[in-house]
Amino acid sequence: MEAQLKAEFPADTPPDAIAATPSELNPALVAGLRDLLGERFSTAPADREHHGRGESYHAIQPPQAVCRALSTDEVSGIVKLCAKFDTPVVAFGAGTSLEGHVAARRGGICIDVGGMTRIVAVRPGDLDCTVEAGVTRQQLNAHLRDTGLFFPVDPGAECTIGGMAATRASGTNAVRYGTMRENVISLTVVMADGSIIRTSSRARKSSAGYDLTRLIVGSEGTLGIITEVTIRLYGVPEAMASAVCSFPDMGSAVAAVTTIIQFGIPVARVEFLDSNAMRATNKHSGLTLDEVPTLFFEFHGSEASVAEQAELVKEIVADNGASGFQWASDPEARAQLWRARHNIHYAIQGMRPNARVWSTDVCVPISALTQVMTETQPDLEAASFFIATVGHVGDGNFHLGLCIDPTSAAELAEAEILNERLVRRAIALDGTCTGEHGVGYGKAKFMNLEHGDGVRFMRMIKQALDPKDILNPGKILPAA
Amino acid sequence: MEAQLKAEFPADTPPDAIAATPSELNPALVAGLRDLLGERFSTAPADREHHGRGESYHAIQPPQAVCRALSTDEVSGIVKLCAKFDTPVVAFGAGTSLEGHVAARRGGICIDVGGMTRIVAVRPGDLDCTVEAGVTRQQLNAHLRDTGLFFPVDPGAECTIGGMAATRASGTNAVRYGTMRENVISLTVVMADGSIIRTSSRARKSSAGYDLTRLIVGSEGTLGIITEVTIRLYGVPEAMASAVCSFPDMGSAVAAVTTIIQFGIPVARVEFLDSNAMRATNKHSGLTLDEVPTLFFEFHGSEASVAEQAELVKEIVADNGASGFQWASDPEARAQLWRARHNIHYAIQGMRPNARVWSTDVCVPISALTQVMTETQPDLEAASFFIATVGHVGDGNFHLGLCIDPTSAAELAEAEILNERLVRRAIALDGTCTGEHGVGYGKAKFMNLEHGDGVRFMRMIKQALDPKDILNPGKILPAA
Repeated sequence: MEAQLKAEFPADTPPDAIAATPSELNPALVAGLRDLLGERFSTAPADREHHGRGESYHAIQPPQAVCRALSTDEVSGIVKLCAKFDTPVVAFGAGTSLEGHVAARRGGICIDVGGMTRIVAVRPGDLDCTVEAGVTRQQLNAHLRDTGLFFPVDPGAECTIGGMAATRASGTNAVRYGTMRENVISLTVVMADGSIIRTSSRARKSSAGYDLTRLIVGSEGTLGIITEVTIRLYGVPEAMASAVCSFPDMGSAVAAVTTIIQFGIPVARVEFLDSNAMRATNKHSGLTLDEVPTLFFEFHGSEASVAEQAELVKEIVADNGASGFQWASDPEARAQLWRARHNIHYAIQGMRPNARVWSTDVCVPISALTQVMTETQPDLEAASFFIATVGHVGDGNFHLGLCIDPTSAAELAEAEILNERLVRRAIALDGTCTGEHGVGYGKAKFMNLEHGDGVRFMRMIKQALDPKDILNPGKILPAA
Repeated sequence: MEAQLKAEFPADTPPDAIAATPSELNPALVAGLRDLLGERFSTAPADREHHGRGESYHAIQPPQAVCRALSTDEVSGIVKLCAKFDTPVVAFGAGTSLEGHVAARRGGICIDVGGMTRIVAVRPGDLDCTVEAGVTRQQLNAHLRDTGLFFPVDPGAECTIGGMAATRASGTNAVRYGTMRENVISLTVVMADGSIIRTSSRARKSSAGYDLTRLIVGSEGTLGIITEVTIRLYGVPEAMASAVCSFPDMGSAVAAVTTIIQFGIPVARVEFLDSNAMRATNKHSGLTLDEVPTLFFEFHGSEASVAEQAELVKEIVADNGASGFQWASDPEARAQLWRARHNIHYAIQGMRPNARVWSTDVCVPISALTQVMTETQPDLEAASFFIATVGHVGDGNFHLGLCIDPTSAAELAEAEILNERLVRRAIALDGTCTGEHGVGYGKAKFMNLEHGDGVRFMRMIKQALDPKDILNPGKILPAA
């Protein structure tokens, strides 16, 4: 990276406050929380550390104490106490977030809902279910196995449904099934004063007032704490098939995807991996795929529809110079392929000892995808560390996995500049600074650039719903 | 209707204020608006009357003046002036709303955006387009004719895209393509202080902060005035086919639809019409269909997929006692069928001289649809006026068209009780008081019943974004 490229936006460290200690909590608050939770209230250093970080490069910022809630009423009780003592509360699910969402920027209490794992109701007749926030998507899909139904949203990580809703997560098959925005029907939420609301009925559509459901989805615990989620389910398709094919270069792979989407072919998944991502995948998953730009596909539907989709896709990729179109239609081969794709974060991390992955996450209108990826190529070539590119390209969304030494200030600074340049390109092409990872505190600095005056209205909403600023403070909104 | 059945909720008349006259407007405001708009500022009685009513039974409540805006900047200028003089502003598109959305409850200015009919951009490569708020869906689809694309959301009426977004409208093919909630990508909005924001980028998905787009969609002009809309487009399907079939009773028709949805068959449209609706349709559209409970279907897809869907549907309806499955696959026969369905509102109105149609609009989880419709049957039989039932049953959404004399206090009171009983049943079954018509002032009284404490947080949002309560006051939120 050239020396004159300075990050214009200030770095998002150091933390807003030196991590406060448990002893600085108000004793009456501590007494109240102990009373409510017994041993599920903890100030053990290991507990605090574990709850102060996600899976990315951000520094650990531990909360002053951890509360393990087991019910909506308990979450409400904790928030009421914290509101009384003006103490921040940060919700925590599985700790898989990527932009520092769970860092206790201003100290306070972490509410870990990871123990709220009850599957409240599965309603096959309505193709929906209600789960507590701590249920993971894997737990839910295992539970659904005998019903013929599944929940498609799949960000890869072993994350909670509550966390996915809070981050507006998506993943590999959003191109067919949508994101959490489209798949959450209703939420139970504890608001800043501890009151409990349900954001909507279970009707599939409604015009009855402001869309509180979608206001809370993606609000990252800053407007309320999600405790139950009602989501859509889908019938397991009659037929599924996966395929892999290779391309001479990134541009031709992306051009193929663009054509597929413009044709309206309902592919369930279409994932791009560049040659570095393929190298990391082969190494981590013991595969021997060609280490060239590659697309992974999955098709869902009836036997006839899957065959029809695959035939069309095969023609389009061939027209774009693809080679080695390989099928994986038996379940084991399919599972192996997608396991490899899902493990890409850890595969990239494994390319270097003691590394962390700084995963970028831009999304642009699909017609701009080739341009943003092409313009980014020189930055990748100039970088001093390993970088792999993977993308949910059917949505115009892709990630760079920057494999950095998190103790190196120079590498962090280099990564920061690279990330900022990427975000600027995406926003200039009418895209977004984050397609699915969320803002946390890592991307709050880009909010003005992306939303302009819209940020002022977001701030009004935050102030109205959380006037004391106790809900996950220092996230999403940039410092005023 | 039995005499002891009293409406528990107060009637939504009389208006909040006696309609104020133009001469009561602040002269400086009038001067400013004339200056801005010239002859597009009007206080003519006919203009005011026309802008004070939708298509339903609600009394006319004219604004004090009408402003015909031709650009976002003009809307901003009008709102800035109105904000300065604390004067209400009500946005107006095509005047097709059904719950009194455009009634000037507290007088003030109507901003008619019906003249903002520019199609700003069509982007086939991104399957999206941007239009001004006054573009109607018919205008847009005519414009798209040669592109191979179409915009599917179809509430029947000749309504504007801006109005559809403001009401979170849907219609006959939401079961396949979703509602305005799913199909609006981004909005340009004039906020209460006259500032102009764009609610999001054009990326298909984003996790970058609060979902302002979906907060404004369905907010009925109470949080901001929509001036431009960016929406998804879809490829015109390779094949389309329609079909009609008859059932011995409502229950078996609904059971068939429930099974079709639970099987995940991607029907594009599935509409229920009861025998009264069929009678009105035959009379209005000159058809000779059997006057029994009927389903209208439409299938979209490839030739193979349409054939496959139709075959499955044919089996399911036969299992549920259907007879007379009739195809309409040539374009003219299909168009005739759907024209008949679209004209149902006017067909019901035509069953009686000088009638208005009070169209109810509940939506429930699909497993509860038979129950709510069955429980409603005795009310229909006891009613003193003609009622037809039509439903977007694939979504769990249906309407009763009450054919009333709007000058009869007794009929209005009877309709009100019938509507309230229906809404109570829907909410008790975890449904909503409005699937697609919106709240306006007609249904504000049901908001507490449906949302409970959630209404308090909706009110906080309204107060934060419109502290002077000038944006379409008296709508959505019930009197505190």
